[in-house]
Amino acid sequence: MEGQVEKMRHSLSHVLAAAVKELYPTTTFGVGPAIENGFYYDMDFQGEKISDADLKKIEKKMRGIIARGCKMLQREASREEALAWARENGQKYKVELIEELPEGETITFYDLVDPKGEVLFADLCKGPHVEDLKEIGAWQLDKIAGAYWRGDEKREMLTRVYGLAFTTDEELKEYLARQEEARRRDHRKLGKELDLFCFSDLVGAGLPLFTPRGTVLREELSELSLGLRGKAGFKKVWTPHITKVDLYKASGHYAKFGDELFMVHSQVNGEEFALKPMNCPHHAQIFASKPRTYKEMPVRYMEATTDYRDEKTGELGGLSRVRSLTQDDSHVFCRKDQIKQEIQTLVGIVRKLYSTVGMEKLRARLSYRDGSDKYLGDPELWKMAQEQIKEAAVENGLDYFEQEGEAAFYGPKIDFMAEDAIGREHQVATVQLDFVQPERFELEFVNAQGEKERPVMIHHATLGSIERFLSVFIEHTGGRFPLWCAPEQVRILTVSADAEEYARKVEETLAGLELNEPVKHNELRYSLDLSDDSLGKKIKRATEIKIPVVIIVGARDASAETVSLRLRDGEETVKLADLAGFLRGMAEK
Amino acid sequence: MEGQVEKMRHSLSHVLAAAVKELYPTTTFGVGPAIENGFYYDMDFQGEKISDADLKKIEKKMRGIIARGCKMLQREASREEALAWARENGQKYKVELIEELPEGETITFYDLVDPKGEVLFADLCKGPHVEDLKEIGAWQLDKIAGAYWRGDEKREMLTRVYGLAFTTDEELKEYLARQEEARRRDHRKLGKELDLFCFSDLVGAGLPLFTPRGTVLREELSELSLGLRGKAGFKKVWTPHITKVDLYKASGHYAKFGDELFMVHSQVNGEEFALKPMNCPHHAQIFASKPRTYKEMPVRYMEATTDYRDEKTGELGGLSRVRSLTQDDSHVFCRKDQIKQEIQTLVGIVRKLYSTVGMEKLRARLSYRDGSDKYLGDPELWKMAQEQIKEAAVENGLDYFEQEGEAAFYGPKIDFMAEDAIGREHQVATVQLDFVQPERFELEFVNAQGEKERPVMIHHATLGSIERFLSVFIEHTGGRFPLWCAPEQVRILTVSADAEEYARKVEETLAGLELNEPVKHNELRYSLDLSDDSLGKKIKRATEIKIPVVIIVGARDASAETVSLRLRDGEETVKLADLAGFLRGMAEK
Repeated sequence: MEGQVEKMRHSLSHVLAAAVKELYPTTTFGVGPAIENGFYYDMDFQGEKISDADLKKIEKKMRGIIARGCKMLQREASREEALAWARENGQKYKVELIEELPEGETITFYDLVDPKGEVLFADLCKGPHVEDLKEIGAWQLDKIAGAYWRGDEKREMLTRVYGLAFTTDEELKEYLARQEEARRRDHRKLGKELDLFCFSDLVGAGLPLFTPRGTVLREELSELSLGLRGKAGFKKVWTPHITKVDLYKASGHYAKFGDELFMVHSQVNGEEFALKPMNCPHHAQIFASKPRTYKEMPVRYMEATTDYRDEKTGELGGLSRVRSLTQDDSHVFCRKDQIKQEIQTLVGIVRKLYSTVGMEKLRARLSYRDGSDKYLGDPELWKMAQEQIKEAAVENGLDYFEQEGEAAFYGPKIDFMAEDAIGREHQVATVQLDFVQPERFELEFVNAQGEKERPVMIHHATLGSIERFLSVFIEHTGGRFPLWCAPEQVRILTVSADAEEYARKVEETLAGLELNEPVKHNELRYSLDLSDDSLGKKIKRATEIKIPVVIIVGARDASAETVSLRLRDGEETVKLADLAGFLRGMAEK
Repeated sequence: MEGQVEKMRHSLSHVLAAAVKELYPTTTFGVGPAIENGFYYDMDFQGEKISDADLKKIEKKMRGIIARGCKMLQREASREEALAWARENGQKYKVELIEELPEGETITFYDLVDPKGEVLFADLCKGPHVEDLKEIGAWQLDKIAGAYWRGDEKREMLTRVYGLAFTTDEELKEYLARQEEARRRDHRKLGKELDLFCFSDLVGAGLPLFTPRGTVLREELSELSLGLRGKAGFKKVWTPHITKVDLYKASGHYAKFGDELFMVHSQVNGEEFALKPMNCPHHAQIFASKPRTYKEMPVRYMEATTDYRDEKTGELGGLSRVRSLTQDDSHVFCRKDQIKQEIQTLVGIVRKLYSTVGMEKLRARLSYRDGSDKYLGDPELWKMAQEQIKEAAVENGLDYFEQEGEAAFYGPKIDFMAEDAIGREHQVATVQLDFVQPERFELEFVNAQGEKERPVMIHHATLGSIERFLSVFIEHTGGRFPLWCAPEQVRILTVSADAEEYARKVEETLAGLELNEPVKHNELRYSLDLSDDSLGKKIKRATEIKIPVVIIVGARDASAETVSLRLRDGEETVKLADLAGFLRGMAEK
């Protein structure tokens, strides 16, 4: 945040408090910071319920205060004076904050003062603030939410009033439009409208069930990811979803994350298992299942498999955060001299995939170790690997930045951030080197000298979790999925009953038709609407679920051997003989 | 078992006991019945370890007894006399058996008596027995195993000695050959030799991990099953592997199988889930996720998903019985007037799949209700459904038999048994009607009259569990998988280094080649062995893992533009230009 806009936002939170104090004099105040896009204040309305209508009233009062030409005046007070002030005013949250400051500390206050010199609201606050409220730009109150005092769910639930604030009206308008667009694209809303997935109270929160349409979408994306890796020499493996915890004790995960595992209990004989939250230890077991030589390295495994992570119920939301997350996971076991080549390959796969799904704008964070001793593995190996990572980034023309100290304890990594259609950045793919698991599992291969050597492990996920990626992709496309992955790609509608015969002829053209880009052997998913509903109603039904190609056939089309296509970007008439080619061409775009 | 062979087998168990009694006089005896293919006796050797060498000795002694011309003489004794006899002889197991008989019961004994009238072994036994041991046909001792007294793992562990017995030498020989063949085909042995799957002590028993080769096999079989159902209008869905137990409480499964579930515990907030042992309740939730009308019925879901069943460790073996079983599961939700058509479709799918995998010999058991009141659902609906099942069986020309009282409590069913290459029958596919779950989940659709109506649910699995089917299929084929599902279909070997260039040209012919039968888009899986090992060594490596097509190329092939194929049933020389067509033809066979 730049200085001036932050000052403005911060002052607005004081204006908000002043307005509330006038309207609800018994209110006690928590904290009110400037935040991205605006500000908020956490307040205890003493049981009073605040509605959206009240927001209007508060906002009006705030505009009045600003119009009066008030100023923000800084002053200092001792800790003791501050405490006395807070107690006197019954501001128990402020008392708590002040009490935590060291004895003898000098405390800064800001008074919001009207032209007559009356203090409308005083608050302990480090600032900075605008001097004169006239400096405040474009703003409005936004919404109300609940917030535990100090983020602690055992403490009081306060009312948080959010406001938006920008330097100019244009910025505010733009932000509101973007928010509106995000709401329109909300994947939870679209998931329902497009019949992609559902939740069941009987099954539980964070455990989505995918309908036929949603399953097509997941599978097409998964196939794209598997296909790209398959071409690069990755082989599918299959591992179960549970394991004895011994596996995580051996891998070292248990010591770190043991208390976050979903534990599985056998009622038959009391054995204890865990649901797998990741797949690397399972894949390491397959690598270890037979002797390996340098000639067969790198060994590359991939699996689209569901992991389980025990997220708090309150943090679950749509597909963004789920308990059942299907990873398009890969592990490379390679020689040290193969690291760079493998990273190059993976970076290439990531770029190809994200350009295919229309998210060309990728940034990469190269995370290195710092000087601390929290990292495991040979420092020389780290140095070499970090150099190889950087070379791969440079040679691939990646938009990258480097961060020391951001590496995992087991190795350096690259994280990819993709920008969506409305400018939001999402963390997506990852490539992580691992010097530790091969050691812990005592993985080895016989090198060219006939000696046993440890392989290096590279973790990689291209989509990340399919569920989370879907939440991004649904919002990125607004549910207008590209032809190749649209659950229903084509629907044929008849203008009237006399076109039925011709509609069946059109269907013959489509039956078994394959679109081979970007996923191979994508057999056309189409349907036929021969109902006797009006054409308008049939079109509405098809466009509501955003089918990319609607083919309308009437008696005239039959005699001309043409079809009328209603596409997202307009209408088109195509000869029946050219229809297959036309659709194939659309998929390649 | 026929009368005479059963008598023979039964008498042999007494001869076995008599021989043991002579060799190990302190032995105490449990029970010794006739069984399929032979007999056994459970004996307590009082701590003495019995080895295979001892078996030889015992067998020799048995042959001696038979040669002496002994007879089996029946006599009766009172319960008290029998008890006195058993106690006197220190036969504690016999004491236990006799004590459980009602007071005053007359007990039958059989004495094994030699020509001099000496009783070699007396045993309480209902018979029947041969009169004269001369009647005994072809037999031999088989193996030793441990067996808990009365099958109770808290009781004494006895030594079970097994014997084989048949009427003729030919039958015995044939049986031994079949056993030898079964051992050769053992899927656990082949799984290792062909590198298909592995187990890890860290992951746990009954939780197989599939290597790249095994994963190809599972996926091809799964694709076959999904493809056949997809063509019949089934749509893929996706459901998580865990659920709140509320789902099984609602479905009624919890009351029946609640104590067999793998329970999943959240350490974060104490929530309880279960691993799903079946998928029907999940699929019912997707059906229930939106309103349905008669027009969209039947709704057909399918999913290849992994279920978890808490089998006892001792019962786990290879892939035959696992804890992680992937079902090729389907559920149809249909109107009552659609039952027969849906069953017809499913029967057709089953026949097609099993003929494709080379197991044409299928038997079907039609399981109906009996007169008892343990069945739920409208009896009229049962009657109609059973008639429809039978009609479907007749019209499909199924080899079927009917069993009253074998239906599930929720509906009648068809179970399919497939015969493998060595004559063993395996229970495979199933089609089960369910009148209860739609009721319990209150599933409904709006019928043509605008009224709400319950659908009927049909459960179906074509392969059953993929793991279990694989155990059957690996043994059925002996690891000589048909071309279409062979993990590695083709390997190109060079006679010497000067053929390398030509080998690469052959590879170009194979790259991206698709075999489209029986699974579509089966992109050829091949490899190139250009190593400088001898041709013999390279051939050995390829045939050891039973690659169906080995292409050998030398300098002579290069100039003639031919390739030499080493197939399972002989050798063949094919023009390079005809190679693709030749392979496609092989896959269609």
